[in-house]
Amino acid sequence: MHSERFYTLTASCPDRVGIIARVSGFIAEHQGWILESSYHSDPGANGQDSRYFMRIEVKADSLPFPAAEFRRLFTPIAAELGLDWKLSDSAVKKRVVVMVSQQEHCLYDLLARWQSKELAIDIPCVISNHDTFKGFVEWHGIPFHHVPVNAANKADANAEIARLFEQARGDTMVLARYMQIIAPELCAAHPGQIINIHHSFLPSFVGARPYHQAHQRGVKLIGATCHYVTAELDQGPIIEQDVIRIDHSDSVDDMVRYGKDIEKTVLARGLRYHIEDRVLSHGNKTVVFR
Amino acid sequence: MHSERFYTLTASCPDRVGIIARVSGFIAEHQGWILESSYHSDPGANGQDSRYFMRIEVKADSLPFPAAEFRRLFTPIAAELGLDWKLSDSAVKKRVVVMVSQQEHCLYDLLARWQSKELAIDIPCVISNHDTFKGFVEWHGIPFHHVPVNAANKADANAEIARLFEQARGDTMVLARYMQIIAPELCAAHPGQIINIHHSFLPSFVGARPYHQAHQRGVKLIGATCHYVTAELDQGPIIEQDVIRIDHSDSVDDMVRYGKDIEKTVLARGLRYHIEDRVLSHGNKTVVFR
Amino acid sequence: MHSERFYTLTASCPDRVGIIARVSGFIAEHQGWILESSYHSDPGANGQDSRYFMRIEVKADSLPFPAAEFRRLFTPIAAELGLDWKLSDSAVKKRVVVMVSQQEHCLYDLLARWQSKELAIDIPCVISNHDTFKGFVEWHGIPFHHVPVNAANKADANAEIARLFEQARGDTMVLARYMQIIAPELCAAHPGQIINIHHSFLPSFVGARPYHQAHQRGVKLIGATCHYVTAELDQGPIIEQDVIRIDHSDSVDDMVRYGKDIEKTVLARGLRYHIEDRVLSHGNKTVVFR
Amino acid sequence: MHSERFYTLTASCPDRVGIIARVSGFIAEHQGWILESSYHSDPGANGQDSRYFMRIEVKADSLPFPAAEFRRLFTPIAAELGLDWKLSDSAVKKRVVVMVSQQEHCLYDLLARWQSKELAIDIPCVISNHDTFKGFVEWHGIPFHHVPVNAANKADANAEIARLFEQARGDTMVLARYMQIIAPELCAAHPGQIINIHHSFLPSFVGARPYHQAHQRGVKLIGATCHYVTAELDQGPIIEQDVIRIDHSDSVDDMVRYGKDIEKTVLARGLRYHIEDRVLSHGNKTVVFR
Repeated sequence: MHSERFYTLTASCPDRVGIIARVSGFIAEHQGWILESSYHSDPGANGQDSRYFMRIEVKADSLPFPAAEFRRLFTPIAAELGLDWKLSDSAVKKRVVVMVSQQEHCLYDLLARWQSKELAIDIPCVISNHDTFKGFVEWHGIPFHHVPVNAANKADANAEIARLFEQARGDTMVLARYMQIIAPELCAAHPGQIINIHHSFLPSFVGARPYHQAHQRGVKLIGATCHYVTAELDQGPIIEQDVIRIDHSDSVDDMVRYGKDIEKTVLARGLRYHIEDRVLSHGNKTVVFR
Repeated sequence: MHSERFYTLTASCPDRVGIIARVSGFIAEHQGWILESSYHSDPGANGQDSRYFMRIEVKADSLPFPAAEFRRLFTPIAAELGLDWKLSDSAVKKRVVVMVSQQEHCLYDLLARWQSKELAIDIPCVISNHDTFKGFVEWHGIPFHHVPVNAANKADANAEIARLFEQARGDTMVLARYMQIIAPELCAAHPGQIINIHHSFLPSFVGARPYHQAHQRGVKLIGATCHYVTAELDQGPIIEQDVIRIDHSDSVDDMVRYGKDIEKTVLARGLRYHIEDRVLSHGNKTVVFR
Repeated sequence: MHSERFYTLTASCPDRVGIIARVSGFIAEHQGWILESSYHSDPGANGQDSRYFMRIEVKADSLPFPAAEFRRLFTPIAAELGLDWKLSDSAVKKRVVVMVSQQEHCLYDLLARWQSKELAIDIPCVISNHDTFKGFVEWHGIPFHHVPVNAANKADANAEIARLFEQARGDTMVLARYMQIIAPELCAAHPGQIINIHHSFLPSFVGARPYHQAHQRGVKLIGATCHYVTAELDQGPIIEQDVIRIDHSDSVDDMVRYGKDIEKTVLARGLRYHIEDRVLSHGNKTVVFR
Repeated sequence: MHSERFYTLTASCPDRVGIIARVSGFIAEHQGWILESSYHSDPGANGQDSRYFMRIEVKADSLPFPAAEFRRLFTPIAAELGLDWKLSDSAVKKRVVVMVSQQEHCLYDLLARWQSKELAIDIPCVISNHDTFKGFVEWHGIPFHHVPVNAANKADANAEIARLFEQARGDTMVLARYMQIIAPELCAAHPGQIINIHHSFLPSFVGARPYHQAHQRGVKLIGATCHYVTAELDQGPIIEQDVIRIDHSDSVDDMVRYGKDIEKTVLARGLRYHIEDRVLSHGNKTVVFR
């Protein structure tokens, strides 16, 4: 991430001749200084048309106008190209609501990155189905909401989570080893906004107890997957994955322990890509401009 | 691998007190010099008993007798401990029959390792359902058998493969991207002797066209798996696996190309572990003493 | 790590016939149940003699006597073999004094592992040349000592650190990105007890600002090294290392950020090996029985 | 690499507003279809000015003119921007002269990639200071030149190599574990054209016997580095690097063996980047648009 203020334009559209020329021409015309730019043409498959993706960072003070005016002037060009686009401002931090249960590793990791400003986010609150980390979270000056979940109160708990997310004006929800299922309606209402870390190398070992499944199959590497949450369990678009080597001497407990190290790293990387607008969805896949 | 001649004792048995003491005591009693030794206790699961695994390399000329006498003297001790065991001699090279179809990467890689003596094996012959590599293999002085396979002759082809393997006195068969299915009877007749390289990170993407499956799911790493072949497709005990990073810009063709690099490396590693008697089977899993 | 109580015997000696037999024979004689055991023979170089290393975990309650009696009975055997050895007890936690400056990542990471009991250690205190993390550390119920260091007070500061380590009855000191040099006398007084994380893949980029050095050389991977501290800067025995991929688009700041993720992981792994008595020193190298 | 014919424009220039717009505008004006494009702005350091790098693939048959006309029309724009540029044509294969000594792994690997057309290159000849691989190379239909090198004939041998490279109309020379030093004058005459694979993770272990150096230092990972050759030994711009894990049980011979696997992979990757015009030099560093 650059230290000066910048705008990030992300966009996709049907591929055709002249897209970069049109978009970069607009920016150049207004003396916009491009800090970083990435482009990708997806050729499509099975008769789908090819689609174009781009991400451009423009130095804010190189432009003679603010973000709002950029958006106004760019709108007709976007219409002409059929762009699905947005412009974000590095000065406006993403508001990330963190969900956690009883495992500490992702929470400690995220708060360390937040407190050192390595991750340029605001955390308006942490929500948990346990009160294990109440003191730890509040010590950091972050509000903590305990929303217990049990067989009887699932609907109410989900409604409360939705309400807290709304109240916090969250734009991203991170499931930092949150062990309850998020209501399908909440997923549907926030596509590309809810990020989960699954403790396996998807699509292997979907669902519960993936390390037990991995142990039983005798795999030689275990993994973690950061993905957007959709209504279908563990099937959402994958943002980032990684693996770590194990061997026959590792018990399920050892795998759980090793797994923590990749879970927190993969989640932090995936979250960073997301908040820096590096992830563009494309059906059930992602384009990640690292 | 050590340069001096040595014997390798591999064994497993129900775990109990005193196994190492008994086995290493026998070796010490005869002045055997241990070059390398590895032990593993598997605690079992779901009420299974724990099982003990070991691999010991003894310098041949430290012992006052040859391998046959070692075996004779060790037999009562093995019986006492309930050992499932064997003793191999580094001076007796494994005979590895290589099966290949039309992709070159694993074949070139194995022959390079064989010709430089990096892999201490004999290759009595290469068998293929195509004649693509006939000249290349024969240039190396290795007999090449062309056994075409089609819908009509499968049984005959499989019988011919079994006959050639027998005739070659093969003790290991390597499927170096051999794209036909080995007959279940042949698999059953040679448990732990037929090694395949599958071009995915199993258990993901079993069966045909795993790179297409991986591309469609949008994974961020692709893998390869070296495993023993059993009658059930892609379900045998895993010996070795590895992965390589890809991203949204990689087409299926790119994945095929990247995949070759891990396929040949993972196969070569798995084969090495096998021929050095580092792999002990344990149900559908392996203990690999690297 | 096993959940039941166990003793860990670590030892090294000149290599000869019968070492395993003698040691495992002693254990078996007393009905000791071996949970895990590892052996390594180092052949020596340049006319040095070969040396033998071992690590054996014995289930505590399988023995008819406590650790003290084990030590007493084993002493003559150790003398006979010329063993350099020790026996530790999993019920006695290592006391790890953590040193930190102003970077949060290793500290948060270690405290997360400590509070979840993933790392079975006691942290009697944290010492820092800054008071940045005083509140955070004390919130965890751990004493925090602020020992400022400047050009004028180095000797006093070092003496104070030595005194605090002594007072805390520390057996291990971890430099968790502590940016001051530990006095050579303190290093000399505690060989194999002070662990540092250096932010480069040693022996590349010794000394200050390794990421700047790496950026200037244009390397494609950056690394971190966990090593024992000796009087010679960044030259001590290496315990663990790892690397992460970077590319031309990464600035020094990006490298610092990526580096944090491997620094904390490599330090945690190295520390775990150390506290589980998996690291045996051998001149300026280590044997690590993972 | 795309299967359709395309031109690759690579260029660098002082950074300023409007570079992408000007270049992509030119392409769009002539209906050029951009298959892939990458941009990088290097901010400079220590008062250097920032510099811009780009690589653009344009589908050949989308343009109304051939490469020569592209070059003619683009020349004034390049002059205006101060571009250091070239345009290559995917239909014109690079001519790669391979240098080898007595180790087989890189040679087998390159020839396998060449014969399967995975690497889109011509190999006009192989040159070696030994005749070990004469038969193997010639079997592939590639001329083999034996140029022995000894203390007395170094100058003559180097002159002969230069002559053969010239005669072969080589545009790239690959040192595939060629164990002689290339004459500084030859290096100087072909900057960015001679590629070496060094068997260490540079800048560690420069010069001879890097695996012995690594063994002595007790590192936990070993590496390989693909770089452009300059007059200064092992100091040229790094194109690609990778590492592999080792441990205390690995002898120098084991390290040599492990090392082969990364050497050939890293060399193949680096060579691919080079022949696809993905590597742009920047002082003693490289921009690699993967």
